[in-house]
Amino acid sequence: MTKRCEWMGVAAVIAMLGVWSGVLAGEPEGRIAALNAHPTPESLRTWHDLLAQETHVAGTAGDARTIERLAAAFGEMGLEVEVHEIWPLLCEPVSAALEIVAPERVVLEIAERVLPEDPATAESAGFGWNAYGGSGDVTGRVVYANQGTKGDFEKLAGMGVDVRGAIVFARYGGNYRGYKAKYAEEAGAAGLVIYTDPGDSGYAKGLAYPEGGYASDCCVQRGSVLTMAYQGDPLTPGAEATLEAERIGVERAGLPRIPVQPIGYGAAREVLGRMTGAAVPEGWQGGLPFTYRVEGGEALRVRLMVEQVRRVRRTANVVATLRGAIFPDEMVIVGCHHDAWNHGAADPLCGTIALMESARAFAAEARAGRPPARTVVFAAWGAEEFGIIGSSEWVEANRERLRRHAVAYINLDMAAMGTNFGASASPSLRGVIEAAAGDVPQPGDAEGRTVAAVWPGTFGDLGGGSDHVGFLCHAGVPSCALGGSGGRGWSYHSAYDTLAWYRKVVGPGYESALMVTRMTNAVASRLADSRIVPLEASAYSPDAVRVLKALTARGLEIGAFGKMDGGEGVAAAFAPIVGAAADAERRAAAAMERLAAAGSMDEGAAARANAAILGMERAWLDEAGLPGRRWFANLYAAPDETSGYAAWILPELARAVEMRDAGAIEAGVARCVAAFGRLGARADEVMAE
Amino acid sequence: MTKRCEWMGVAAVIAMLGVWSGVLAGEPEGRIAALNAHPTPESLRTWHDLLAQETHVAGTAGDARTIERLAAAFGEMGLEVEVHEIWPLLCEPVSAALEIVAPERVVLEIAERVLPEDPATAESAGFGWNAYGGSGDVTGRVVYANQGTKGDFEKLAGMGVDVRGAIVFARYGGNYRGYKAKYAEEAGAAGLVIYTDPGDSGYAKGLAYPEGGYASDCCVQRGSVLTMAYQGDPLTPGAEATLEAERIGVERAGLPRIPVQPIGYGAAREVLGRMTGAAVPEGWQGGLPFTYRVEGGEALRVRLMVEQVRRVRRTANVVATLRGAIFPDEMVIVGCHHDAWNHGAADPLCGTIALMESARAFAAEARAGRPPARTVVFAAWGAEEFGIIGSSEWVEANRERLRRHAVAYINLDMAAMGTNFGASASPSLRGVIEAAAGDVPQPGDAEGRTVAAVWPGTFGDLGGGSDHVGFLCHAGVPSCALGGSGGRGWSYHSAYDTLAWYRKVVGPGYESALMVTRMTNAVASRLADSRIVPLEASAYSPDAVRVLKALTARGLEIGAFGKMDGGEGVAAAFAPIVGAAADAERRAAAAMERLAAAGSMDEGAAARANAAILGMERAWLDEAGLPGRRWFANLYAAPDETSGYAAWILPELARAVEMRDAGAIEAGVARCVAAFGRLGARADEVMAE
Repeated sequence: MTKRCEWMGVAAVIAMLGVWSGVLAGEPEGRIAALNAHPTPESLRTWHDLLAQETHVAGTAGDARTIERLAAAFGEMGLEVEVHEIWPLLCEPVSAALEIVAPERVVLEIAERVLPEDPATAESAGFGWNAYGGSGDVTGRVVYANQGTKGDFEKLAGMGVDVRGAIVFARYGGNYRGYKAKYAEEAGAAGLVIYTDPGDSGYAKGLAYPEGGYASDCCVQRGSVLTMAYQGDPLTPGAEATLEAERIGVERAGLPRIPVQPIGYGAAREVLGRMTGAAVPEGWQGGLPFTYRVEGGEALRVRLMVEQVRRVRRTANVVATLRGAIFPDEMVIVGCHHDAWNHGAADPLCGTIALMESARAFAAEARAGRPPARTVVFAAWGAEEFGIIGSSEWVEANRERLRRHAVAYINLDMAAMGTNFGASASPSLRGVIEAAAGDVPQPGDAEGRTVAAVWPGTFGDLGGGSDHVGFLCHAGVPSCALGGSGGRGWSYHSAYDTLAWYRKVVGPGYESALMVTRMTNAVASRLADSRIVPLEASAYSPDAVRVLKALTARGLEIGAFGKMDGGEGVAAAFAPIVGAAADAERRAAAAMERLAAAGSMDEGAAARANAAILGMERAWLDEAGLPGRRWFANLYAAPDETSGYAAWILPELARAVEMRDAGAIEAGVARCVAAFGRLGARADEVMAE
Repeated sequence: MTKRCEWMGVAAVIAMLGVWSGVLAGEPEGRIAALNAHPTPESLRTWHDLLAQETHVAGTAGDARTIERLAAAFGEMGLEVEVHEIWPLLCEPVSAALEIVAPERVVLEIAERVLPEDPATAESAGFGWNAYGGSGDVTGRVVYANQGTKGDFEKLAGMGVDVRGAIVFARYGGNYRGYKAKYAEEAGAAGLVIYTDPGDSGYAKGLAYPEGGYASDCCVQRGSVLTMAYQGDPLTPGAEATLEAERIGVERAGLPRIPVQPIGYGAAREVLGRMTGAAVPEGWQGGLPFTYRVEGGEALRVRLMVEQVRRVRRTANVVATLRGAIFPDEMVIVGCHHDAWNHGAADPLCGTIALMESARAFAAEARAGRPPARTVVFAAWGAEEFGIIGSSEWVEANRERLRRHAVAYINLDMAAMGTNFGASASPSLRGVIEAAAGDVPQPGDAEGRTVAAVWPGTFGDLGGGSDHVGFLCHAGVPSCALGGSGGRGWSYHSAYDTLAWYRKVVGPGYESALMVTRMTNAVASRLADSRIVPLEASAYSPDAVRVLKALTARGLEIGAFGKMDGGEGVAAAFAPIVGAAADAERRAAAAMERLAAAGSMDEGAAARANAAILGMERAWLDEAGLPGRRWFANLYAAPDETSGYAAWILPELARAVEMRDAGAIEAGVARCVAAFGRLGARADEVMAE
């Protein structure tokens, strides 16, 4: 293969199509079709059998064996394999108990039942736990706090409900469970019980597993309750968690102090059904067969005991690299975590198997003499479930390289849950995904159409909650999450997230995982094989304007703007961003025109152009970080600070609105304007005279 | 009082305000303020004590005593009282039983519990029944049919569920219960059980009575299951049900043949919880604590036994008349039924007491020398609960007089359920109600504002389900229903609809009933005392255009238009109505301008103008009636034919759309065009040269 590859020639294609994004150089259809000839349902199923054969919580022996299996599998493909060891603070459950102690003693079941129909549950069924919750033995009155959101605790305060010393019961949903613990603790609760409501995930949605796929009365959602101003290992903020790394004291990590216990709705019913206080306000009622109440009354007393051990344990990311033939420094990263709360057939493995299958396709093509133009990294992350730890540590370890050379990150966490395609993505990546959707057949479509013909084409914003966070928010790498939904069931973080459950609910045919693998191949190939990186930095401008409109409406609704003169004052405050966005959009579009006009170019010129394009993405990085959380250095996108799952776009302004901190708007506007200015300046560097 | 009343002088006021509707002649505020000085909470409470002291199902001894009490009360006010006796086919429950017979025998409770906290329930609690259901003793498999709507039974057929011979369980809601019975019978069911779902009216909404106000597990909604192509007594279609009237054979009345039984959710849970078939489709799940299923399976067998006696019984309307001083022939009718399924404190009596209190105000003013200009009729209707019988019979008995002279009908069924004002109204009446809302204080408003300032000002369309139907749909009299909502509870048609329940849920202070009384006074006075009848016939035109748009959208959604060429073809088909509506609107507006320009006029001229205005309303009457139901002679509004509660506006076209009968559109359009033509022609008669 000559260095000047025959199938590169992006300028001609750009000129022909008149569009920038998603343009595969030369013979895009041939390249993607070749990649997509490799994945098969049988292979996906085999990966699934390999990785979901045992429970593998991060830091356990099952985790270590899973890491070995992944490394061996990537190695057999002929990829360069790095087992990236890390030593984060993890934790283990020791014991837990929940009981009603007055007016009568009732010991409540907090463990799942073993199902004879699903032998895997003999290993996974056990008492539920929330990692990083406090250890303790507390007894108190009961308060029901709905979903335990910031707003829910504000409403309780408004009703005059005294949460101090109480055992708070909150249902799952509405936020990341860590915020339930944070707000319960701030309100003075003695302990927190989080339960799965049958109205949200149980019988009201459908038949319970194993007859159907939904949560039964004993099904418990495990999960971390970590909330910090940074992501990754709690003890090594901003630095790689090597064995010998300097660590902060655990007391400085701000972990929850109160005990936190997850339970199923069978146990919750025993407590909630004995409450005697006033009926709940509108929207707080769940699916249990009685009217929910806010307070348990004086006679009802509940005891919660939780014992956990927190310690530094070994785990690892398994990172497989396929070196690019033309631009080996530039890299596209595809990732999904490998750790799970139990077997993890759905979370994360239905995405992990698509990762493996995509790697297998790229590796096979490379072995046949058709390597990608850029380096493609396939990464299986460790300890995601404890707090997005493995990927964050790898990003910290590789920060400068990523900031210089990373083209994009594609996340596949729990990606194959059905055949309804969906995506969340940075604005600059959306065109690539739209184009890729035209390359992949829609499973089960009688008319033989592509994903593009069936998918509505709308994108979500990327928030927190998975391994894209380090790439996007710490390293400024444009990111996306791809996936399919539609399976009818719910086993999230429970003992029932097994292969049998997955094959019953999502199906035994792996159509979803096949679609996701093919979408991954098509997106990754467009990013890795196009001579000019197909990122559309101009897309930030209209997206920012959309977000400013939404922030204005939200701020007016909640009275966030203080003395500002209604909508007009807010519009005036935001106007500099709108102007800067328009200017940046114009300059980015002009850069693309120069690129298209330049025609065929050599590698050196292309590399310089690509460096400028990546520089436009990094325009959003600001070393000062976001207010109060410096680790989050991307001024365009961050997880929100009040629920943990939602995205804050233009997060400094979103924070000012949500916190009703009108005084913070001016500084946020100035930094956004500066970012758009940097973006425009770097656009000017593209094919500069 | 001179015949040329000082406080008449509409033309000047019209000229001053520049509006047509809601103009009280001379001193509107003084007249309405005087009327509204009479009503008091104490008096409303006394009426309530009088009328809700015992159960009074139509045809029973309690009904007869209630009729005597009403007649005496009106008589004491000095009104002319007619006890309008009628002899309709009614029915009485004899016995009923519901039990699971296999795989185990479980006798189910179908009666409400007596509540020690509410002694009235000792009289009202008993087994529930659905009037006019068939008598029989049937045993069969179980099928759950959601709300038993036309669409629900179509969905069951689509799923291949065999309803023949089955006992169908359907939850209340979504339609009039008579249609549940009709569609169940048409699908071949052996029997029908209708239950109150806790997700709709029970614990999911709030605490049960007596702790709260919502339905407990044993609370049963009684009610008629009559569905006919006419309203009123089943045996005397279109004619007054006098003792000696000619009657059709009962077999020709099309009454349900299958037994129908209402139950509470405690009993329903026993059956639904034992079903074993497939899970229900989206939207069919209710609030019981398990996943609902469509079929009970072969092992589950349920027995339903219902015995009722149908017979012709005496009941009566109590009609009190206050003769008008200037235009005694012209009349405004205010009505509410008096019969109830039990005590009826809410349904209907909280509206009936507003009727009584409004009558008391008008009568007191008349006794003080200030009678209304037009005759005002206050009517307490009998046997509404069995099928809107009493009012329909009175309309049939007075049809020609009503068609000639009735200005409007105001319905108050169950009107005082809270202080959030609401109204449904014929288009021509909406302006009057809007103006009246400015006359009445909003209860509990800290700023002392009027109903108009708080009420959103949107109107519902009048459908079926209460005593306006005869006036509006048979006699062409513009009608409205006034009321207040907001009380948090549900005792509808149950043993718990008692004074204690009402005072707990709506409140002991009668603020709602006071507001409704005052709104009734203000609306009735504007209609009765304005020299020129303040009906805005021009309002039909924009309303018709709104409805045509909605029908077009609905028809396109359900594929109702057959071979018509999409939206354009439909628009072309409806275009003649739009043109006719615009022409009628122009002519009606011109008539109003002539009236305004005419200035002060004598009674003869005013009477002629008013006759023309009433004639514009009757433009909608067509003796041929609606397709398949001649009794419904109003081409503008009718109850729908598939659910019984909704309104069909332009019903002939609504029917064509709902029945996907594109061939019926042309004839419907022609009759609408003709009606608008008649309306325009009668407008031309107003103050014609």
